[in-house]
Amino acid sequence: MASFSAVELIIAKRERGELSTEAINWLVQNYVSGAVADEQMSAMAMAILLNGMNRREIHDLTTAMIASGERLDFAALPWPTADKHSTGGVGDKITLPLAPLVASFGVAVPQLSGRGLGHTGGTLDKLEAIHGWRAALSNHEMHRQLAEVGAVICAAGTGLAPADRKLYALRDVTGTVESIALISSSIMSKKIAEGTDSLVLDVKVGSGAFMKTAERARELAQTLVALGQDAGVKTTALLTDMNTPLGLKIGNTLEVEESIEVLQGGGPADVVELTVELASEMLRLAGHGDVDVHANLKNGKAHDKWVQMIEAQGGDLSVPLPQARESHTIMASASGFLNRLDALQVGVAAWRLGAGRARKEDAVQFGAGITLHIKPGQAVVAGQPLMTLFTDEASRFDAGLAALEGGFDIGSNNEPFNAFGTAMTPNRFGGSGSIVIDRIEG
Amino acid sequence: MASFSAVELIIAKRERGELSTEAINWLVQNYVSGAVADEQMSAMAMAILLNGMNRREIHDLTTAMIASGERLDFAALPWPTADKHSTGGVGDKITLPLAPLVASFGVAVPQLSGRGLGHTGGTLDKLEAIHGWRAALSNHEMHRQLAEVGAVICAAGTGLAPADRKLYALRDVTGTVESIALISSSIMSKKIAEGTDSLVLDVKVGSGAFMKTAERARELAQTLVALGQDAGVKTTALLTDMNTPLGLKIGNTLEVEESIEVLQGGGPADVVELTVELASEMLRLAGHGDVDVHANLKNGKAHDKWVQMIEAQGGDLSVPLPQARESHTIMASASGFLNRLDALQVGVAAWRLGAGRARKEDAVQFGAGITLHIKPGQAVVAGQPLMTLFTDEASRFDAGLAALEGGFDIGSNNEPFNAFGTAMTPNRFGGSGSIVIDRIEG
Repeated sequence: MASFSAVELIIAKRERGELSTEAINWLVQNYVSGAVADEQMSAMAMAILLNGMNRREIHDLTTAMIASGERLDFAALPWPTADKHSTGGVGDKITLPLAPLVASFGVAVPQLSGRGLGHTGGTLDKLEAIHGWRAALSNHEMHRQLAEVGAVICAAGTGLAPADRKLYALRDVTGTVESIALISSSIMSKKIAEGTDSLVLDVKVGSGAFMKTAERARELAQTLVALGQDAGVKTTALLTDMNTPLGLKIGNTLEVEESIEVLQGGGPADVVELTVELASEMLRLAGHGDVDVHANLKNGKAHDKWVQMIEAQGGDLSVPLPQARESHTIMASASGFLNRLDALQVGVAAWRLGAGRARKEDAVQFGAGITLHIKPGQAVVAGQPLMTLFTDEASRFDAGLAALEGGFDIGSNNEPFNAFGTAMTPNRFGGSGSIVIDRIEG
Repeated sequence: MASFSAVELIIAKRERGELSTEAINWLVQNYVSGAVADEQMSAMAMAILLNGMNRREIHDLTTAMIASGERLDFAALPWPTADKHSTGGVGDKITLPLAPLVASFGVAVPQLSGRGLGHTGGTLDKLEAIHGWRAALSNHEMHRQLAEVGAVICAAGTGLAPADRKLYALRDVTGTVESIALISSSIMSKKIAEGTDSLVLDVKVGSGAFMKTAERARELAQTLVALGQDAGVKTTALLTDMNTPLGLKIGNTLEVEESIEVLQGGGPADVVELTVELASEMLRLAGHGDVDVHANLKNGKAHDKWVQMIEAQGGDLSVPLPQARESHTIMASASGFLNRLDALQVGVAAWRLGAGRARKEDAVQFGAGITLHIKPGQAVVAGQPLMTLFTDEASRFDAGLAALEGGFDIGSNNEPFNAFGTAMTPNRFGGSGSIVIDRIEG
């Protein structure tokens, strides 16, 4: 293999140069081996974040990270596979109802998930609120569950894209997360190595998302879709609103509860809509575009699949979910309309109440979080409950309340919010209701 | 002290924010203690390099680095002190004749120097070519030599600005050297902590310098002068040309030889000019502006001081300097005028021949380097020697010759070079001869 100098490659990117395929392969291999040091890779990551990478460089980075580990293969399964990835939002529990819903139509869902770090919760943290549920499966166990149940949500093994694992941990502590090149290669290296046939990306945009503007989110979505298609994975993306939390419940136990409501045919309209939109997209890519997705939420088939999926991993749904010991309700100080409820601030508040972790090694509180009693666009009367905060430690209320400061507005006029409490942004339905802003395909 | 998060500070600078005085103090103290990790500091360094720092931030960074260590104080000496710092160039041996020349007029020169890493040689490496000469002095030994001889060139102790020492080593391996904020705080933290009364900066501009354009060099010079004056050090800067090597000899033994020629009243005109210009500036700042600087080069007083200074540190000038075992001379392939001789390429060639080191722990070859037989602006006849390469290992000639490829042009017309072989750039003498382009004062 060609040999390079780490310093020369860093300087090339610092000076807005383009890194060759050989240079990127060398960099990734030598970073995994330790020959390129963490402090060199973080300087490179900052140079990439500030100066960017073109599509070819991002493709090469993704390919090099895939090549750093093993690749799974689901070709032996009797049905097609489809997966979903969300770039992360507040109250985003969609994976929980989505995986069994899609599987209930005969499309297998191999959902490799992570834990939360920061203001967005982790899917594994949520499911671990269920007594006995086990996140860590061997590749063999995962295959068997996909063959027998058709859906699995488990921890990504350490064998998939180890370069990404190492780089992600570095980016997290060096202020180099928010780069389209680094985010997209990180997401897609894992999803391509995982071996799914189809992939739908839920790219969040708004205050609670990495991408604050629709323009940046669209650029990320287009990059992700191109990377998937280059690798032979049928890939599309939905741009969805994350200015206000998704649903009414934010926290681990709380989000499992809301997911079960959806699987039983109820639940908040925005969670139902996004679950159905993503499921429809996954089923379409997998060749099942002609089904009535709503039906399986109403008729119990998705819920049956959920129960099978959880029990296959040791989960006991008869044991009550852990509840927080303390609660505190915030009341409306005036009458009018809730004009704004900021996703980021609610996410940070839930995190500080104990729903998330400050360091990788911390435990989460399953019961901690927030339930919303009203959402933006709804009328409110002074003294009416706005939201309830939950935690096991009353000492955390101050930090939670501080995070919420200035995070919501009650005004005398009703501003244009859709039925889900999301500010109305132009979308493919003409700006009149959906939290799906746009759909991106290759 | 206020507490900060390293990641939040990195993100602030990444987003072109300004770091507060408290934030910079926290960062430097916690970097020295290890609480801020190398990979965080390198990401910060890249963000600073790409997004810059304002004067207040650079001042605070310099102050925080000074505060990380001890400060020397020469107030007890019976004479004023003056020091010089060069930003580094090819063939730049000026410190060697300059320190004894200035001391010969009764102004003490406490010159704390470094070793070479990269294409510019280190002053200590050059002096170590002298048998028995010792770079490492205790603070007490340094003070005593200043009191007895009036000039000392020695290694900077580890107690001065340890934050800069740690940060410089990091920048060197992470492609984050070429930042005005980081270069100026690095230089000035050491010089201010050193405790000199006056300081003259030789800021190089051109292919062989960190600063490739006069504009960038002027910005660096202005920043350095302002930092010195803020700290109560009388500071000025000369902008000098570094498009072609300084003098005729590049290498450790070779530069000691050329320095002795100057101290004995001879030597190349450009080395003499720059030595005299810098000495005049230092003497003026120290209150001795009315002396005949040239005289002490001609009458042996500077040379006597040189002998005292070297012998005080164990140097034995009666032992012949180490010479290279192998040499190779490049002949002119055509007749005409030498129109260009690139400083960077000559510097890299000398480095590869063994005059410099690839890693901190490598040894240098004292005899390795290059002697120039003609300089730009001079006429040349086909077959005439252009330069001679020296090394202890004949296997290094290939790398040296490769580095010189395209590094010089022989043309049929004589282009406008001054008497020293430097392309004529506008200077304070009207563009007609001096390698001093400009003088910067506060």
